[in-house]
Amino acid sequence: MSDLTEIRDAARAFIAEREWEEFQDPKSVLLALVGEVGELAELLQWLPADKARALAREEPLHTQLSEEMADVLVYLVGLADQCGVDLGKSALAKIEKSAAKHPADQVRGVAPQR
Amino acid sequence: MSDLTEIRDAARAFIAEREWEEFQDPKSVLLALVGEVGELAELLQWLPADKARALAREEPLHTQLSEEMADVLVYLVGLADQCGVDLGKSALAKIEKSAAKHPADQVRGVAPQR
Amino acid sequence: MSDLTEIRDAARAFIAEREWEEFQDPKSVLLALVGEVGELAELLQWLPADKARALAREEPLHTQLSEEMADVLVYLVGLADQCGVDLGKSALAKIEKSAAKHPADQVRGVAPQR
Amino acid sequence: MSDLTEIRDAARAFIAEREWEEFQDPKSVLLALVGEVGELAELLQWLPADKARALAREEPLHTQLSEEMADVLVYLVGLADQCGVDLGKSALAKIEKSAAKHPADQVRGVAPQR
Repeated sequence: MSDLTEIRDAARAFIAEREWEEFQDPKSVLLALVGEVGELAELLQWLPADKARALAREEPLHTQLSEEMADVLVYLVGLADQCGVDLGKSALAKIEKSAAKHPADQVRGVAPQR
Repeated sequence: MSDLTEIRDAARAFIAEREWEEFQDPKSVLLALVGEVGELAELLQWLPADKARALAREEPLHTQLSEEMADVLVYLVGLADQCGVDLGKSALAKIEKSAAKHPADQVRGVAPQR
Repeated sequence: MSDLTEIRDAARAFIAEREWEEFQDPKSVLLALVGEVGELAELLQWLPADKARALAREEPLHTQLSEEMADVLVYLVGLADQCGVDLGKSALAKIEKSAAKHPADQVRGVAPQR
Repeated sequence: MSDLTEIRDAARAFIAEREWEEFQDPKSVLLALVGEVGELAELLQWLPADKARALAREEPLHTQLSEEMADVLVYLVGLADQCGVDLGKSALAKIEKSAAKHPADQVRGVAPQR
C-alpha cells in the first residue's frame, strides 16, 4: 500500500478514536503544521549552513529532526485529507511541471530562481 | 513502489539534471518549504473557518491548494533526503507515539492540547 | 525615542556582549523568526476561531502570547537591521500603498482578497 | 509618538474604513502573517548564506525585502492589537529576560543554543 495512504488512514483512525474530527478544519490544521515547521526551524537555525547536512546526521539532532519532519508530514497529510487533495499524485505532477518550466540546459549549475 | 520513495527519486533526478545539488543545504531547503507553507496560508487565511473545508473542494481554489501542498511535500521530501531521514517510517512511528501519549478514553471529544 | 529603534539598539547590545554577530546572517535570523511564529501558532491552533480573541486575553495564554509575539518582533527587528531596512518607515508606507490599492468604497464589508 | 503605536493606529483606520473588523480574528491574522513570512523566505532561500547580508542591500532585492518585512510587521501589530498585547513593552522585557538567562561571560562567541 502507498505510504501516504497508510499515514492518512492511521491519522484518520487516531482522530476518530478521540472524536477530534470537529477540530480538524483546514485553518487549524495548517496552523498546527506551521507549529511543527517552527520546531524544525529551531533545530537548524544556528547551525553553520555548510555543516548542516553533516550535523543533521548525528545524534541526538538526527532523531529530533526525524520526529519534527514526521509531525509536519502528518499534518500535511491531514490537511490534504480535509481538502480532498491527492498529495502523492500532485507532488509527482508538480515535479514534472517544474521540469518543463526550468529546462536543464538553460539552468544547469545556476542557482534556482523563483 | 512507495510514493514517498517515488517522489524522492523524481526530486533527486530533477536536481541532478540541473546540477543544483550544491544549493540543497538543509537551511535553504527549509526556507523554500517555509515559502510554500506561506503560499498555502495565503489561500486559506481569509476563508471563514467553518466554511473552509467546503470551499477548499471548489475550483479554482482546490487546484491551487493541491499545487501548494505538493510544493510543501516536495521540499519536505528533499529536506528529509538531505538529512538522511526516513519520512514514511517516522510519520507512522509518530502517530503511534501520539496515540500512546493521548489515550482515547482520556481525551475523547475534548480539544487537542499540546 | 522610537520604540523600534530602542528594540533594535537593545538587540544589538545583547548580540555584541555575547559576540554573536557572526551568527546573525539573514537566513539564520529568518529561521529563528520562523521558529517563534511556530510557537505563536501552537498557542492558537486549537482555539475555536470565534472565541480566540476573548481567550487570548485570559491568563495564562495572554502572557504566553505576549512573549512569543515579542520574540517574533525581536527577530524581525534583527533581520531588518542585518538587511539595512527601516522597518517603521516601510510599514507606514505599506499601509498607505495598500489603502490606495484597495479603495474603501470598492471593498467595504467584503472579505479581503489577495 | 511611538512608531509601533503609529502603525497600530494606521492599521486600525485602514481596517475600519473597509469594515474588515470581522475578518481580523487572531487565527486568520496569524495565517496572513505566515503568508508574508513565506514571501520573505522566498526572497532569501537560494542566496549563499555568507553573501546574504551584502546581497540584501542591493536593488531590487533590498526594496522587495523592505516591503515583505513591512507586511510581517503590520500583521504582527494587528495580531497584538487583537490579543491586547503591548508589543513594544513585551519586546524590551524579552531582551532583558534573555540577557539574564544567557550571561555574556558564559556564552561569549559560542553559537546561540535554544
